Amino acid sequence: MTTIRVTVWNEFRHERTTAEIAQIYPAGIHAAIASALQREEGLVVRTATLDEPEHGLTADVLEQTDVLIWWGHMAHHEVADEVVERVQQRVWAGMGLIVLHSGHFSKIFKRLLGTACDLKWREGNDHERLWVVQPGHPIVEGIGEYIDLEHEEMYGEHFAIPQPETLVLVSWFSGGEVFRSGCCYTRGQGRIFYFRPGHERYPTYHNPQIQRVIANAVRWAAPTGPQTITFGNTRPLEGDQGR
Amino acid sequence: MTTIRVTVWNEFRHERTTAEIAQIYPAGIHAAIASALQREEGLVVRTATLDEPEHGLTADVLEQTDVLIWWGHMAHHEVADEVVERVQQRVWAGMGLIVLHSGHFSKIFKRLLGTACDLKWREGNDHERLWVVQPGHPIVEGIGEYIDLEHEEMYGEHFAIPQPETLVLVSWFSGGEVFRSGCCYTRGQGRIFYFRPGHERYPTYHNPQIQRVIANAVRWAAPTGPQTITFGNTRPLEGDQGR
Amino acid sequence: MTTIRVTVWNEFRHERTTAEIAQIYPAGIHAAIASALQREEGLVVRTATLDEPEHGLTADVLEQTDVLIWWGHMAHHEVADEVVERVQQRVWAGMGLIVLHSGHFSKIFKRLLGTACDLKWREGNDHERLWVVQPGHPIVEGIGEYIDLEHEEMYGEHFAIPQPETLVLVSWFSGGEVFRSGCCYTRGQGRIFYFRPGHERYPTYHNPQIQRVIANAVRWAAPTGPQTITFGNTRPLEGDQGR
Amino acid sequence: MTTIRVTVWNEFRHERTTAEIAQIYPAGIHAAIASALQREEGLVVRTATLDEPEHGLTADVLEQTDVLIWWGHMAHHEVADEVVERVQQRVWAGMGLIVLHSGHFSKIFKRLLGTACDLKWREGNDHERLWVVQPGHPIVEGIGEYIDLEHEEMYGEHFAIPQPETLVLVSWFSGGEVFRSGCCYTRGQGRIFYFRPGHERYPTYHNPQIQRVIANAVRWAAPTGPQTITFGNTRPLEGDQGR
Repeated sequence: MTTIRVTVWNEFRHERTTAEIAQIYPAGIHAAIASALQREEGLVVRTATLDEPEHGLTADVLEQTDVLIWWGHMAHHEVADEVVERVQQRVWAGMGLIVLHSGHFSKIFKRLLGTACDLKWREGNDHERLWVVQPGHPIVEGIGEYIDLEHEEMYGEHFAIPQPETLVLVSWFSGGEVFRSGCCYTRGQGRIFYFRPGHERYPTYHNPQIQRVIANAVRWAAPTGPQTITFGNTRPLEGDQGR
Repeated sequence: MTTIRVTVWNEFRHERTTAEIAQIYPAGIHAAIASALQREEGLVVRTATLDEPEHGLTADVLEQTDVLIWWGHMAHHEVADEVVERVQQRVWAGMGLIVLHSGHFSKIFKRLLGTACDLKWREGNDHERLWVVQPGHPIVEGIGEYIDLEHEEMYGEHFAIPQPETLVLVSWFSGGEVFRSGCCYTRGQGRIFYFRPGHERYPTYHNPQIQRVIANAVRWAAPTGPQTITFGNTRPLEGDQGR
Repeated sequence: MTTIRVTVWNEFRHERTTAEIAQIYPAGIHAAIASALQREEGLVVRTATLDEPEHGLTADVLEQTDVLIWWGHMAHHEVADEVVERVQQRVWAGMGLIVLHSGHFSKIFKRLLGTACDLKWREGNDHERLWVVQPGHPIVEGIGEYIDLEHEEMYGEHFAIPQPETLVLVSWFSGGEVFRSGCCYTRGQGRIFYFRPGHERYPTYHNPQIQRVIANAVRWAAPTGPQTITFGNTRPLEGDQGR
Repeated sequence: MTTIRVTVWNEFRHERTTAEIAQIYPAGIHAAIASALQREEGLVVRTATLDEPEHGLTADVLEQTDVLIWWGHMAHHEVADEVVERVQQRVWAGMGLIVLHSGHFSKIFKRLLGTACDLKWREGNDHERLWVVQPGHPIVEGIGEYIDLEHEEMYGEHFAIPQPETLVLVSWFSGGEVFRSGCCYTRGQGRIFYFRPGHERYPTYHNPQIQRVIANAVRWAAPTGPQTITFGNTRPLEGDQGR
């Protein structure tokens, strides 16, 4: 089995400014996610955060990243356009991208999807149940019929995304809403997975089923061997254009 | 505007054997649906039922049908394979097909989809809310953000269908389930829409929003001008196979 | 039938600087396309070009446009980002968009699709045959099995786009290439159609079948009645979040 | 890496009755395909043919098959409905299925797809070029931009299939036609890949690129861990249906 190199990116602000969030994620959301992934066979995991130089996403780091995981919320606008551009190029070249929760409003997600990515939301201790609608899909291997999260932030439809290439999970919320919670896309040679849960005030990333989905998604999004494509002016393959 | 010829097909058994259902649909579910459609401009509507000769779906009737609506439940097995075959051929040739509620288990739906079409269900006065996930789609024109049905039978995931070409509606149920309630497919030149609500014990087909979705779906599924396709052995379009 | 308001946008540079192109399109590509559309029932057509103030696409013009047609080639970079942003917002709100030929590299197309939109090309008098792969689709109504273009610029795969929601046409080129030539997308409430043919050195937009596809696409892309969507913080629909 | 158990099924008639075909595939098409797969790490390969009892596809064999490869042509009608039903059930339960060439008209393919699966064809030494339209997809890993087959039978559009969930390859033919040659579907928990080339009169299955695609497809179609799904009457997850 080939090794998959994962970089977990986190904004890492809430955890440093709000005591109650720091209690849930003392080393940051990225550390919690990375630590779960490190227990998986065949994954090599590093982290990067907003306040590092170039947000920790230098050309070199991206070049050595097979799958990038993205968590952001309050500081989307602080992410430099140059870095966003760099990430997009890498996705097009085959890097996998897993966008978590409030990352729906990140520059990179909106740019890759081409839509507003807006939604309804509510912080109010909703009960969430994520139903598997595509059993047999590698991303939900080992999950069972649904994931039960006793308390989570609500995200509700309409979610302004292009129709997913594959819709894997749909959430039920006790407040009366539904949400497309597990959405697959391809952009260039890169595979993208959006996964809804993970509000900073809940211990969602400590949940083993959530960790399992993220690990599965990493394997699903890992690039297939690189494919070189020729673009631009090309000569005919048939003599005299085949005539 | 061209006229669209609609045939509403109904099993028509529950309404004749159960008093409480007869009260809701005295002339049958088909009559309720047809009567709502008859108020629409440009639609010519007829009905057909299981116990008519050839289930009311003779070659002639189908030939004159642009969109067929299908409601069945307790007698799927009584539908003759020959008629199912005939309907399938017409769908392939361009006839639209709208499958309602328990029609998910009809021979024609399973044959066109190629899957088991099974699901979870519960008769228990669930509250259903059908959320629009594809606003701007012609089938949900004029519906608003969701349809609220105070009481309905529950259908829950996993619904064993191929992933819809377009998913238009997702249901929330008070018992904790979700369901892909409005699903578009193409088979041959025919457009197919599956629409979940409509248990026989509830007055669902008297609901104006439900009627609106069905009318919208009729217009969406109506065939585009017939397209003749050549199959089989064909001569090359380029001399000497282009070489 | 409701009137559909169409705006045909053209860069309008080649036709003013190259005599041989001016001969094919004396009043510009936009004029040729508009004039064909004006013969269609129920369409109201105007044009706009790059060198008009705001490229002819003021907020007011866009507000009164149901479907925008886009042809550009040598001056994509001259299109102001502010106008691109405005067009994107209108597509999200429901305006249809038909992107023609070299418009594959326009800012608006790349921004809505989220990919590089690159491809192979060759100016060399290739013979093109556009095969219908989705007969029964409204965009190819009346087209028959294929469109034959004696001479056209070649565009070849790989075309760096997201997989189309519906692929309607595939081109064969005498030089040995294929291309996904008719591609449907949805972004927000807007429907988008990419249609490949139309190099400025060939009289492609005078071809009646090409005109027919564009007219069909206009009707397909025309917005359904506007749908208001609530985004942001929302209150629960179920008391105490349903518990 | 888990072992994948592959069964290569072949009608095995042409090779026994036509000398020139026997020369190309002395031990049968199945043997040629199996022998290429046996060189792959992690695959365990067996074969089965039409004239064996139960066509070699007993319940037991299918239960021990992760991916089934299907080649048939002149004797589709001889395949027992009972075996077709059994294969369909296994696909729904997660078994992968790879349908080759003239298998497009097999009972199992038509039943799983729900369409006529008809097409244009010509035996005439066409030159075929299979273009990759989804680079980065695991099925075309290591293939490059296209596969070149000097001589093959032509299959042309329209191919009467449901739009593929993912379209991976498109063929160019020297006679002027195109064809969707690599098509992915999901039915139940099973993944299906249709791969066009492989006429019995050409040595196509000895081509290393063709062998590579088939091996890649086996890995792609291999089932994810089995997922148990509850269907039928179910109790609410929320007390008193959440009210």
